Amino acid sequence: MTRYNVAIAFSQTEPRVNFIDKLAAATSRHDSLLCVGLDPDAAKFPAGLQGKSDAIFTFCKAIIDATAGLACAFKPQIAYFAALAAEDQLQSICDYLRQTYPHIPIVLDAKRGDIGATAEQYAREAFERYGADAVTVNPYMGFDSVAPYMEWKDRGAIVLCRTSNPGGSDLQFMNVDGVPLYQHVARMVAEKWNRNGQCGLVVGATFPQELAAVRNIVGDMPLLVPGIGAQGGDIQATVRAGRTASGGGMMINSSRAILYAKTMGEENYAQAAQRVARETRDAINLYRG
Amino acid sequence: MTRYNVAIAFSQTEPRVNFIDKLAAATSRHDSLLCVGLDPDAAKFPAGLQGKSDAIFTFCKAIIDATAGLACAFKPQIAYFAALAAEDQLQSICDYLRQTYPHIPIVLDAKRGDIGATAEQYAREAFERYGADAVTVNPYMGFDSVAPYMEWKDRGAIVLCRTSNPGGSDLQFMNVDGVPLYQHVARMVAEKWNRNGQCGLVVGATFPQELAAVRNIVGDMPLLVPGIGAQGGDIQATVRAGRTASGGGMMINSSRAILYAKTMGEENYAQAAQRVARETRDAINLYRG
Repeated sequence: MTRYNVAIAFSQTEPRVNFIDKLAAATSRHDSLLCVGLDPDAAKFPAGLQGKSDAIFTFCKAIIDATAGLACAFKPQIAYFAALAAEDQLQSICDYLRQTYPHIPIVLDAKRGDIGATAEQYAREAFERYGADAVTVNPYMGFDSVAPYMEWKDRGAIVLCRTSNPGGSDLQFMNVDGVPLYQHVARMVAEKWNRNGQCGLVVGATFPQELAAVRNIVGDMPLLVPGIGAQGGDIQATVRAGRTASGGGMMINSSRAILYAKTMGEENYAQAAQRVARETRDAINLYRG
Repeated sequence: MTRYNVAIAFSQTEPRVNFIDKLAAATSRHDSLLCVGLDPDAAKFPAGLQGKSDAIFTFCKAIIDATAGLACAFKPQIAYFAALAAEDQLQSICDYLRQTYPHIPIVLDAKRGDIGATAEQYAREAFERYGADAVTVNPYMGFDSVAPYMEWKDRGAIVLCRTSNPGGSDLQFMNVDGVPLYQHVARMVAEKWNRNGQCGLVVGATFPQELAAVRNIVGDMPLLVPGIGAQGGDIQATVRAGRTASGGGMMINSSRAILYAKTMGEENYAQAAQRVARETRDAINLYRG
């Protein structure tokens, strides 16, 4: 019990820039809309890390150090840690990020969604335990399932809106009064849920015209955009559809294409990750306007 | 790494009755539709447990031992463990349940929802790490976000349909072709997603007429029904609306009203939990028909 009590005391006294401002500052400082996703799959680790008890931390730390100067955010995907009972390594990664790169926001990709009393617990998990700046959440249970995250005034809640997976249309494209459901979600978040300016939305890159429709609804709200890189979304179409008037407002995520970039040759996995991260950041910047 | 590899080897060789049959057998053996929810809130623990490092396990074990003969399922809510970095205690609780009460299904209440590759990791978390018989999942990202759980042929996926919280209507009651969204979800799960007979649905107790509508759509599919007890749903209306023709097909959940039943007098918290669990089971049974 002592361990998390200490962590709680620390996080409550820690001064914080709010998520939206921190994201804008990192975007500007690194001239980047690239979010580096941390989805550590031990089966894809280099041979030298196989079987080591801290392999996940070591791998992610090397990726972070190689790409920090190129990223506007880091996005650890908690499922990869939870499957392996490696939450302690996720905590270490988040601690390392906050200590070493305190200007880069941590977006915990957890897609939580539950009633208020339970959401309070998930908010503690994301913001207190892991010290994340923002967390992804699911809108299906409505406003009171998202509100507890926004009680943390300096943090962000990034709501699932339109996802890039094949089944994304099953619900999100249902016709509600002549408009697809995901656009209602975008409007509801922008007009009702985002009371303190803490919200973002997840909108996949695979449907640029839908990204443009969401941008049109939500003004300058930050969009977390998965689906480029390994998932195949087109960078030019994605940036042109999703950018704000000032050429920002996006966290364009790439995970696997960066983490597992090493193929042949003499570069190591971190060097390969840095190379692909730089190429991706620069490709994005070509189309920011 | 050794620790989880051992757990994986164990769970893959362990013989399993499938979730639906296991639930039906426990319902019959204990003459019960009562699901005991494990939402351990350390602030509400008895004085004798305060500050102990294994307080959550000790508390839940006592509740389990006191109520096992009265329950058709146990439902640990993972958020309460995750907020306190107590996943190890959740693992111990699930291990204890499987070893001591192997005939009672464990429903991990996690409400996960993510794309396929990530959902595979969440399925490993629920079924391999915790050894759960079923897990609650969110439908917003569509079929391919739920399918990976069903690759575990002996386990169950219980899909959020209609929830009992105030914001539940924000999305779930949206009008799609003259029918509220949650009824489309019920029909989609029953007719398309439930290919191997592994699905259930979450339907809150606070709207009995909606519970009846879902029952009418889904046949004998098991329904997980939160919202009685501390949340105030009416038992008679709930059971009459949600029961199958044979008077079953429901896991009617009560968490806080059982866990924190002790008020005054000489009984301890486990005795109080047993008393309220028995009263609740018996009240439910009055209306099974």
